[in-house]
Amino acid sequence: MQQHTTMNDIETILTELREFNRERDWDQFHNGKDLAIAISIEAGELLEAFLWKSPDDAKVEKVREELADVLNYAFQMADKYCFDIKEIMQDKIRKNAAKYPSDKAKGSAKKYNEL
Amino acid sequence: MQQHTTMNDIETILTELREFNRERDWDQFHNGKDLAIAISIEAGELLEAFLWKSPDDAKVEKVREELADVLNYAFQMADKYCFDIKEIMQDKIRKNAAKYPSDKAKGSAKKYNEL
Amino acid sequence: MQQHTTMNDIETILTELREFNRERDWDQFHNGKDLAIAISIEAGELLEAFLWKSPDDAKVEKVREELADVLNYAFQMADKYCFDIKEIMQDKIRKNAAKYPSDKAKGSAKKYNEL
Amino acid sequence: MQQHTTMNDIETILTELREFNRERDWDQFHNGKDLAIAISIEAGELLEAFLWKSPDDAKVEKVREELADVLNYAFQMADKYCFDIKEIMQDKIRKNAAKYPSDKAKGSAKKYNEL
Repeated sequence: MQQHTTMNDIETILTELREFNRERDWDQFHNGKDLAIAISIEAGELLEAFLWKSPDDAKVEKVREELADVLNYAFQMADKYCFDIKEIMQDKIRKNAAKYPSDKAKGSAKKYNEL
Repeated sequence: MQQHTTMNDIETILTELREFNRERDWDQFHNGKDLAIAISIEAGELLEAFLWKSPDDAKVEKVREELADVLNYAFQMADKYCFDIKEIMQDKIRKNAAKYPSDKAKGSAKKYNEL
Repeated sequence: MQQHTTMNDIETILTELREFNRERDWDQFHNGKDLAIAISIEAGELLEAFLWKSPDDAKVEKVREELADVLNYAFQMADKYCFDIKEIMQDKIRKNAAKYPSDKAKGSAKKYNEL
Repeated sequence: MQQHTTMNDIETILTELREFNRERDWDQFHNGKDLAIAISIEAGELLEAFLWKSPDDAKVEKVREELADVLNYAFQMADKYCFDIKEIMQDKIRKNAAKYPSDKAKGSAKKYNEL
């Protein structure tokens, strides 16, 4: 019986990003420092959607565009460092779970060192 | 024959993030504006790994931690807005492909409006 | 009659910053790119004072510290580029006054291209 | 003999910024959180001048414009909090001098907790 190997979502996106950069010969620019700068710039553009506005009053289309930029650069940076995206995200969730035990952190926005 | 439905990576991570926040009753804090702020803060901490350093001289462990924070907040923000992460990332790659046609953009780091 | 030449505030601060860096031999690290990175990192730390909080609920001491960091790096960057701080700030106020004429912009938080 | 009281540079700039905002009735938008967001956005635009470039290869005109924006918002935030700009900057220089004693920090870009 035939087994269709379905590529995972994260891998699918990475494949498209690699292809995009290969076609433009852009890997040469993608050092760690400039990728971190790119993420910060896009994070700033995402913030701009909320400036002088109440918390949920941003234009959804603008949020969607800028958040996609943050994610695309973050994926490219992970790829540059050969990180397994799922693994580093899950590791961090586990670490945060230890730093913020639910019985102490429940309903509180305090930083872990203030709990 | 039994078909195991395997959850894809993005959905797996989102499920863990939702569970993490539900256990701590933290959804109440997660408005769009503060999530955008959180992404910017983490992007700044990621930048810190590269400050006063040559482009690829950052400590990998620090990059890994801070990049995971950026990604985790970006996923939570996408979830808050009910965006399909794969879709918004692929849409943006397509838009960028149109903005930066490979024949013009090849090997150039110029912005699309300077090409 | 003797005329005491009083150094103005901006020049006084710049003199202290130059002396601080000279004593530590830090000018070698202060290229434009890393100074811009430093400003972004400090801006992120300033943002952290407001995360998950209502607009004026930050700890004043934290705001004071982080804002001073932003200002100190911004002054060092201006100095690196030999900008006259007062002049570039006043120029920008004039440009913004033209972009946002008071009769159109009054009471509105819209961007100039939406007015 | 007549004594001309000359207004200090910082006070001159603050007076212009206050007048600018008063004419547009913009003080209502200038809470601490949005001013911190505005500084971060401008810091991101300043970073953009250096993206994919060697450390001193940015366009000076762009650096000048964006740095002026960072400074203008930082001054407005200081004013909002009634900070004495000269004082908070000098205080921070003194604190940094204690954190980074010149004999230990000389020629080193390490963080104070790594010295």
